[in-house]
Amino acid sequence: MDFVGLTMNEGIARIALRRGKVNAINETVVDELTDCFRKLSFDPAVKAVIFTGEGKFFTFGFDIPEFLGYSKEAFVRYLTKFTGLYADIFLYPKPVVAALNGHTIAGGCMLAIACDWRIMVQGSAKISLNEINFSSSVFAGSVEMMKLWLGQKKAENALLSGAMYSPEDARELGLIDQIVSKDDLDSEAGKKAREYASQDSAAFASIKKLLRKPAAEEMMKRERESILEFVEIWYSEKTWNNLKEKVIRS
Amino acid sequence: MDFVGLTMNEGIARIALRRGKVNAINETVVDELTDCFRKLSFDPAVKAVIFTGEGKFFTFGFDIPEFLGYSKEAFVRYLTKFTGLYADIFLYPKPVVAALNGHTIAGGCMLAIACDWRIMVQGSAKISLNEINFSSSVFAGSVEMMKLWLGQKKAENALLSGAMYSPEDARELGLIDQIVSKDDLDSEAGKKAREYASQDSAAFASIKKLLRKPAAEEMMKRERESILEFVEIWYSEKTWNNLKEKVIRS
Amino acid sequence: MDFVGLTMNEGIARIALRRGKVNAINETVVDELTDCFRKLSFDPAVKAVIFTGEGKFFTFGFDIPEFLGYSKEAFVRYLTKFTGLYADIFLYPKPVVAALNGHTIAGGCMLAIACDWRIMVQGSAKISLNEINFSSSVFAGSVEMMKLWLGQKKAENALLSGAMYSPEDARELGLIDQIVSKDDLDSEAGKKAREYASQDSAAFASIKKLLRKPAAEEMMKRERESILEFVEIWYSEKTWNNLKEKVIRS
Repeated sequence: MDFVGLTMNEGIARIALRRGKVNAINETVVDELTDCFRKLSFDPAVKAVIFTGEGKFFTFGFDIPEFLGYSKEAFVRYLTKFTGLYADIFLYPKPVVAALNGHTIAGGCMLAIACDWRIMVQGSAKISLNEINFSSSVFAGSVEMMKLWLGQKKAENALLSGAMYSPEDARELGLIDQIVSKDDLDSEAGKKAREYASQDSAAFASIKKLLRKPAAEEMMKRERESILEFVEIWYSEKTWNNLKEKVIRS
Repeated sequence: MDFVGLTMNEGIARIALRRGKVNAINETVVDELTDCFRKLSFDPAVKAVIFTGEGKFFTFGFDIPEFLGYSKEAFVRYLTKFTGLYADIFLYPKPVVAALNGHTIAGGCMLAIACDWRIMVQGSAKISLNEINFSSSVFAGSVEMMKLWLGQKKAENALLSGAMYSPEDARELGLIDQIVSKDDLDSEAGKKAREYASQDSAAFASIKKLLRKPAAEEMMKRERESILEFVEIWYSEKTWNNLKEKVIRS
Repeated sequence: MDFVGLTMNEGIARIALRRGKVNAINETVVDELTDCFRKLSFDPAVKAVIFTGEGKFFTFGFDIPEFLGYSKEAFVRYLTKFTGLYADIFLYPKPVVAALNGHTIAGGCMLAIACDWRIMVQGSAKISLNEINFSSSVFAGSVEMMKLWLGQKKAENALLSGAMYSPEDARELGLIDQIVSKDDLDSEAGKKAREYASQDSAAFASIKKLLRKPAAEEMMKRERESILEFVEIWYSEKTWNNLKEKVIRS
C-alpha cells in the first residue's frame, strides 16, 4: 500500500493515512483503505481498528486538483467507491476508533463520522463538513450520519453553514467524543480500542449491526441518486469555477 | 391576495398573514399561502423567504367557527391542502425563516415548525401544539416534524400535554431557535435570511433536500390515514361539543 | 394469574410482577402480562396503567436457569412472545407509567422502555441493558426504543458497554424520567397516571399512535431476524458457558 500505513499491536490494528502534506483522498487512497479494512475484518487476530493520519492532517478531504481532471463517469465511479467505503466503516463488525490527529475536513469528516468513537487532538485543528462553502453538495449517507450524531437541528446548522469547528465546539455538538493532547492521542485511542475489544466479539458485532442497520439502509437507499445530483452541481459552471479558483489559491 | 401580504427587499421576500385579529387559518388562507410560496420558489430573484404575521398573533390556528360549517368531505379536502402546505414549506428549496410575531398555536405551530429557523418575540406570546386540549388529534406530518426538532421524549411531552410554551421554554425545548425583542424581529429575521441566502443556492437546495427528504417521506406516507382519523375524532360527539363550546366562549 | 398482581383504583390499573425474589421473567410471566395488558386495553373503565414489581426488584430479566433447559425452537417461541409483549406496551392505546421499584435489568429494562414514563426509586437500584456483558446480543426492537429515548450516541454507549446506571445517571441519559423516594413511588406514579388520564382518551390514543408508529414499524420489521441471530449467539459455546457459569455463581 502506497498511501495507507498498517501496524498491529496486541490485536489492535492501526490504519494511518499518509499522502503528501494534507493526506488528500484520491481513488487509490479509497481503494487501499477499502482493501485494508476488508482484510482486517476477516482476520480473527484483529480485535479493533484505530483509524488515523500521519502529520498535521487527518485528511483535508478530496484531492480536488486531481478530480478536476476526471470525466463525469470516472467521478461517479470514484464517488460510488468513496461512499461505499464510509458505509463499510459505518457497518464494520469490529470497533473502529478515529484518532483525529489534525484537520478533518469535508470527505475526511465523512470518514471520521462513520467510526464508533472520535478522539481529536486539542489545538488549532478544525473539523468540518464545509462543502457548501465551495458551492458543492454532499452525499445522502454523510447527511444521515450527521443527523444520527448531532440530531436534526445541529446537523442542519453544520451542513447549511459549512462552519469549521474547534475540537471543543465539535464535542459540544456531538461531532467528536473526546479531546486529548497530541502526546496522548495514540495511548487514548489504544485505551478506547481495548475497551471495545474487551467485549465478546460476536455480541459486539450483532448489537452494533442492530444499532446501525436502519440508518445504513437509509444511507444506501439514497446514495446513488445523491451522487448523481452531487456530480451535476460539481460540474456546473459556478461550482467548477469555484473549485478551480480554490486550487489556484492553494 | 386577501389574507397574505407579500413584500420584497433585496431578494428577501416577506410573506405576512393578515386575517382578522388572530390570523385564523381558513381554506382561502391556505390556498393563498400555497400559491405565494410556489410562485416565489420559481423566481430566481428571490433568495430567501421570511414568514410572519401582522398584529399580535402569528396565527391562533384553524378558523374553527368556519370549519364547524364544513362537511366531512370538505374538511378532508381542506386538511389535505393544509398538510400539503406544511410539506411544501418543509421541503422548500430556498431558506424560510419564521418570524413569530405573537401567539403561534395549533395549526400555526405546524406551519412554523416546517420552516428552517424560528425567531420569536420575547414577551407573553405562547407557542403550542395544543390540539389534545380540545379532544382533537393532530396529523402525522406535524408529529414527525416535532420529533425531528425536539427528539422523541420532548415531542411526546409537548403533544400529549398540549402545554403552552413561553419563548424561553420553547427555545430550551428546541421548538424555536432564537428570541428577540419586538423591535428587532424584522431586522433579525432579515439578518438570518441573508445569512442563509449568502450560500450557493443550488448547493443549499440540494443539501436541504438531503436533510429533509427521509422525514418528508415518512410524513407523506402517513398523512392521508392520519387526516381520516383526525376527521373521525373531530366529528365525534365529545370533540364536536368541545369545539362548539370553545367557539361560544371565545 | 400466578405471577402478576392486578389492582384497580379509580380507573388506574396497577400491574405488579411478583415471582420469587427477583421477579425473573419466564414464559408464564410473559403470557400473563400479555393477557392482562390486552384485557385492560378493552376495558373502558381503565384510564391508565401503572406497571411495577413487588419487592426489591422491578425485574432482574430473564429466568436464565429455566431457559437453559429450553430447545432452540422453544426459545424462539418464547422470544417472539416477549418481544411481542414490549411491542404491545409500546403501542398501548392507554397511558402506561413504569414505577421502577428496584433493579431493572436486561429484559426488565426492555419492558420498562416500552412504557410512556419511567419513575425510579432513589437508592442503590440499577437499570441496565447489560446483555453484552454475558456475551449475548439483544433484540432489534429494544435497540430501536433505546435510540428513541437516548439518541444514537448514548444508546450505543449503553448497549456496547453494558453499563449499570444509577437512577441519577439514567435520568441524565434519558433512560428514566423521574426519581422519587421509595415511599413516594406509588403516589407519584398515580399522579402521573392521572395526569395522562385527564386527557381525552381518543385523542390521546390517536396522538400516541402517531408518535410511536414509525418506530414500531422499524421494530417489527427487524424483530424476527434479530431473534434468530440472538438465539444463534445464545447457544454458541462461549455464550452458553458464560450463562451456565453465571447461573452457578448466583
